[in-house]
Amino acid sequence: MKQLINSRGQIRQQLLAGLTYTYNDTLTWQEKTGIVTKKTISKDKVVLISGGGCGHEPAHVGYIGENMLDCAVMGAIFEPPASSEILQAIEQTYNGQGTLLIIKNFEKDLASFLEAERLAKAKGLTVSHVIVDDDCSIESGTFEKRRRGVAGTVFVHKILGAAAAEGNSLDELKTLGEQVIPLIKTLGVAFSPASPIGVIPQQYELAENEMYFGIGIHGEPGYRIETMQSSERIAVELVNKLKQQYERKELRKAAVLVNGLGGIPLLELSVFMNDVQQLLDIEDIDVVYKRMGNFLTAYNTNGLSLTLLTIKEDKWLDYLRIPTDAFGWK
Amino acid sequence: MKQLINSRGQIRQQLLAGLTYTYNDTLTWQEKTGIVTKKTISKDKVVLISGGGCGHEPAHVGYIGENMLDCAVMGAIFEPPASSEILQAIEQTYNGQGTLLIIKNFEKDLASFLEAERLAKAKGLTVSHVIVDDDCSIESGTFEKRRRGVAGTVFVHKILGAAAAEGNSLDELKTLGEQVIPLIKTLGVAFSPASPIGVIPQQYELAENEMYFGIGIHGEPGYRIETMQSSERIAVELVNKLKQQYERKELRKAAVLVNGLGGIPLLELSVFMNDVQQLLDIEDIDVVYKRMGNFLTAYNTNGLSLTLLTIKEDKWLDYLRIPTDAFGWK
Repeated sequence: MKQLINSRGQIRQQLLAGLTYTYNDTLTWQEKTGIVTKKTISKDKVVLISGGGCGHEPAHVGYIGENMLDCAVMGAIFEPPASSEILQAIEQTYNGQGTLLIIKNFEKDLASFLEAERLAKAKGLTVSHVIVDDDCSIESGTFEKRRRGVAGTVFVHKILGAAAAEGNSLDELKTLGEQVIPLIKTLGVAFSPASPIGVIPQQYELAENEMYFGIGIHGEPGYRIETMQSSERIAVELVNKLKQQYERKELRKAAVLVNGLGGIPLLELSVFMNDVQQLLDIEDIDVVYKRMGNFLTAYNTNGLSLTLLTIKEDKWLDYLRIPTDAFGWK
Repeated sequence: MKQLINSRGQIRQQLLAGLTYTYNDTLTWQEKTGIVTKKTISKDKVVLISGGGCGHEPAHVGYIGENMLDCAVMGAIFEPPASSEILQAIEQTYNGQGTLLIIKNFEKDLASFLEAERLAKAKGLTVSHVIVDDDCSIESGTFEKRRRGVAGTVFVHKILGAAAAEGNSLDELKTLGEQVIPLIKTLGVAFSPASPIGVIPQQYELAENEMYFGIGIHGEPGYRIETMQSSERIAVELVNKLKQQYERKELRKAAVLVNGLGGIPLLELSVFMNDVQQLLDIEDIDVVYKRMGNFLTAYNTNGLSLTLLTIKEDKWLDYLRIPTDAFGWK
């Protein structure tokens, strides 16, 4: 494996140094920590914090900005930050309006973020959270839904971020999050596994002509290995599986996200988007918002995920469309 | 090789369909051609056209927008468009203010674009061109400079695009281009070669622990294969080689572009950017503009290029900074 790094122990430090150097007009980094904040945090709105392991860039630092996050707390590669750092971030950004944590549904992420929330509350701060669990992959043995938090998290950052900027209270944001999240569904496919700097063991192998449906964003296995197929056939599998997650007629108006996992060229994402469009057209689904690119990656995985979100309220679309200066989304 | 496509013969068609579906608020595609244009082309400014082969996304379709290109003409993978299509694009976008072609310095690209210019002039249209030759790689045998047109082309799109929007004449734009281009220098490095859908033979192999300095954007060989090194050591090689291209003291104020070649994660580009920053700091070079991401890719190459541009006039910096809605640059 070839990796452009210096030393394994310095990855988080040097990644955040590079990112915040490049975007120093909007971002501030507290050196030696994993805490990156918006240069100026408004005193008049709820503070939004997200985060997780490194290796998912531009997530989550790329979503700090107007109408999105105020702060991202980043851990080591594929490891959530320590609760002590999240607590520090909550305290340092606290403005009296309350703080909402946006957490991806992984055991370790929940443990860190919820512990930080508990500690902050014990200090008298007002903190709440939403948990994103958009992944529709299933355990291949038990058929149990995995419900991991994956690329759809970015829709949550944008919708709640814009709603917070508009002046919604902490309770209103939590309620909105809990309305939006169940309508976000994501499914991924990998053509090669993530090879993250040897810090975690590679969890599966794929032969030269194989692909894996339902993989996770930390190199976790999926639900079915198949022979590599055409973009169109892969789009059929993902669109069909996602459709089945919704009630009949629930999916009339949708936002679509075609997300690259880090090692796939934009050319191929575009070919795939064209196939997705044709399938959604046949289903008479009105795609009112679409995004394509690398939004929540799995290090250098050659693969992609497809996310659908039912636009139940026009307001949600306004929140998606309102401009941001967050570098990963603008 | 795993590729997410449908059929080799349909790649250009399906790529452009996917791109223009995703960005249909700003782009118009003339189906079955390689011609993509800005939805509304101003009548009051010189028309800017660029293009080349597919496989370099977001180039060049991603640079169509306010303060950038009016039109991109795209060929097959790594093949420039036919002169007849370029001519068609010139005629269809013609507004009487003149048309400037921005051409990357490759034999085939020059042949197509200059033939189109000749044919358009024969029809009485006012057309001119600039040729971008920012690559500083050398032939390993003769040490001759290769002078290919690579990632620095995007700086030319932005500077000339903003200058055109400001009302500069065709002659003024050509003069500005010829001032800016010699001050743009780029050098690339690959950790794995491009594998472009088997349409062109792979031009080199790299062992598991090897990298190649000075590679081109169509999988062309570089000037030296070495054992894989740290990001810092690679930054030293690229920064030193680029510095040598400038006169003493010429490089006091610079724009920097760290460009991913399609298969490298943003995490690694960020680590590299941090190393570049430290080297430029030591040299006392004032970096007044910086960009990092996938701007001109070589299909799925695991690698990057570094571009420097001397900011000789403050105006150039204004042109770089002025906002655009071009999806590859905003």
